[in-house]
Amino acid sequence: MGTLGIVGLGLIGGSLGLAIKRAEPVDTTIIGYDRKPDVANRALQAKAVDRLVPEIEDLAKEATLIIVATPIISMRKVFETMAPYLRPNVVVTDTASTKSEVLRWARDLLPRNVHFVGGHPMAGKEKSGPQAAEASLFEGRTYCIVPGMDAGPGAVQKVLDIVAAVGAVSHFMDADEHDSYAAAISHVPLVASLALFNLAHDTQAWPELAAMTGPGFRDLTRLASGQPEMAHDIFLTNQANIIHWLDRYIGELMRLAEAIAGDDGEGLFRKLVEIQMERDSFLENPPKRDRPEVSSEVDIPGAGETFMHMMAGNLWRQRANEIMKTMEDRQAARKLEERMRRRE
Amino acid sequence: MGTLGIVGLGLIGGSLGLAIKRAEPVDTTIIGYDRKPDVANRALQAKAVDRLVPEIEDLAKEATLIIVATPIISMRKVFETMAPYLRPNVVVTDTASTKSEVLRWARDLLPRNVHFVGGHPMAGKEKSGPQAAEASLFEGRTYCIVPGMDAGPGAVQKVLDIVAAVGAVSHFMDADEHDSYAAAISHVPLVASLALFNLAHDTQAWPELAAMTGPGFRDLTRLASGQPEMAHDIFLTNQANIIHWLDRYIGELMRLAEAIAGDDGEGLFRKLVEIQMERDSFLENPPKRDRPEVSSEVDIPGAGETFMHMMAGNLWRQRANEIMKTMEDRQAARKLEERMRRRE
Repeated sequence: MGTLGIVGLGLIGGSLGLAIKRAEPVDTTIIGYDRKPDVANRALQAKAVDRLVPEIEDLAKEATLIIVATPIISMRKVFETMAPYLRPNVVVTDTASTKSEVLRWARDLLPRNVHFVGGHPMAGKEKSGPQAAEASLFEGRTYCIVPGMDAGPGAVQKVLDIVAAVGAVSHFMDADEHDSYAAAISHVPLVASLALFNLAHDTQAWPELAAMTGPGFRDLTRLASGQPEMAHDIFLTNQANIIHWLDRYIGELMRLAEAIAGDDGEGLFRKLVEIQMERDSFLENPPKRDRPEVSSEVDIPGAGETFMHMMAGNLWRQRANEIMKTMEDRQAARKLEERMRRRE
Repeated sequence: MGTLGIVGLGLIGGSLGLAIKRAEPVDTTIIGYDRKPDVANRALQAKAVDRLVPEIEDLAKEATLIIVATPIISMRKVFETMAPYLRPNVVVTDTASTKSEVLRWARDLLPRNVHFVGGHPMAGKEKSGPQAAEASLFEGRTYCIVPGMDAGPGAVQKVLDIVAAVGAVSHFMDADEHDSYAAAISHVPLVASLALFNLAHDTQAWPELAAMTGPGFRDLTRLASGQPEMAHDIFLTNQANIIHWLDRYIGELMRLAEAIAGDDGEGLFRKLVEIQMERDSFLENPPKRDRPEVSSEVDIPGAGETFMHMMAGNLWRQRANEIMKTMEDRQAARKLEERMRRRE
């Protein structure tokens, strides 16, 4: 790989260094820079990089392949600082969670003879910094690749070599597609997690609620403990997509609320069985990535769906009698109470 | 403990049996019943119970302490079936995730000389059945105790002995309080999880989205793989509370959406820092459970809050310059684009 430069040596930058070194690519030297000296020194001690350089400019002058793994908002400044010093035909990639703005900055700020290939490893944890870095962070993870307009196939291949070295699976997309999809499966879950924590925390009863929490609450609010810088930068650079998907998410919640408040116990149960089955099949056998040639607005139920309706139906019938009885009893109890009240 | 009877030998019933036997209480025999013979046999093989009884009536006749660990909706029927056969002064407890309906059924259906003490161990996992049972399931978990109106202190103590034997921490509440709080920290997270899975799954782009998912999406949708029966019964027996807290949850989401869509980057960042700090302090040092004697509608910021505002402010200042520059550039770029458009 030649001289690989990593700018930003926190969780992602540090883990990439460790993972690449573990793969032992021939003739590769990793040089690193972080604007925080303690972060840089920790990464060096952990052997995530072979040596440190004192300034971004030094890294730009020397590296033939550069990974920018700083917070998103800082990337703009990093590109600007590196630009005058970059070698001709150098390949620059990044690790930002949003891609449209970053690709725009790269296009506007980097020289034309620089190949920019956007990257986004779908990995992370709520702990940050080089002390949380690990070589196995990317194993089996999806690694989105969003080549810039001027990136040649050779440049893309160099980034694919990194993806392979760290054990991840590459996934080509364009920037708009990436940012919309990332909003749905990553940024809205983050907002959902923040809101769930707030919901419980911003009440007089919080001490009571906190004492009652189990593993469900902890898992569902895990993302609320992520770096606020990261959340902030994601929100700032993907506003429109996040608002769009949040709106749809609120719609989903309202539909579920209606089903919960409604009288159609069978419909509710059927829906719950379907969601469980679909999620289990997603875990066991993730859907293949192939775009249908013709996209149809009319949803025709496939064989799978029919099977699921049947399964849900059978499970339902087993429970229907019990539930019916309960409903009848509850109604009877209510009528009785009403009659008692009227007598008083 | 004498003869302990467990009705329902799935994840919770089976785990309680294993955990109680591990504690080796003197002079205790555990007898078990499950209406599904394979579930019953599996629990016996796993030594979660000492022996099985063929009918609920047999268990009712023999046991001096009974744990009902069936699905919530089935408990009504279990109480009804057991009622004529129960020994005088027997203690009956349950493990349901909602308490108001269950306590009502116990009051209406069990004889007056039976002591009912509602229970709810805040433990579980998305896998169900006796094969998922484990003795350590309740270790360190909160175990809510909701005594029925006619339960004497001796009866409550017997249930506390079980809580201690399985390594859990008891937490007294009344049924309405329990169901409201459980809606906030357990049932709304469940709905949030179901809705997040639906959001991504119910789109044409699902294969694309699925391929991109990382650990965040998996964790946040974990509860969607729970038993549909359990979700259904929770929703059916806690409708009003869930709707109330879902409404507040949607309010939280809308407030976050506003902050994300708005121009106040500092306010957004400050909010994110506060949530992260509050969640971290919740994990490290959960708030003590003490109800303030006077509950005030006016929130006066405490010392902690002021400290957090200060911390958030400092972190913010470090980033403000970078972000300001980015904003200015973006605005400049937009203005440039507009000017270009007007020229065309």
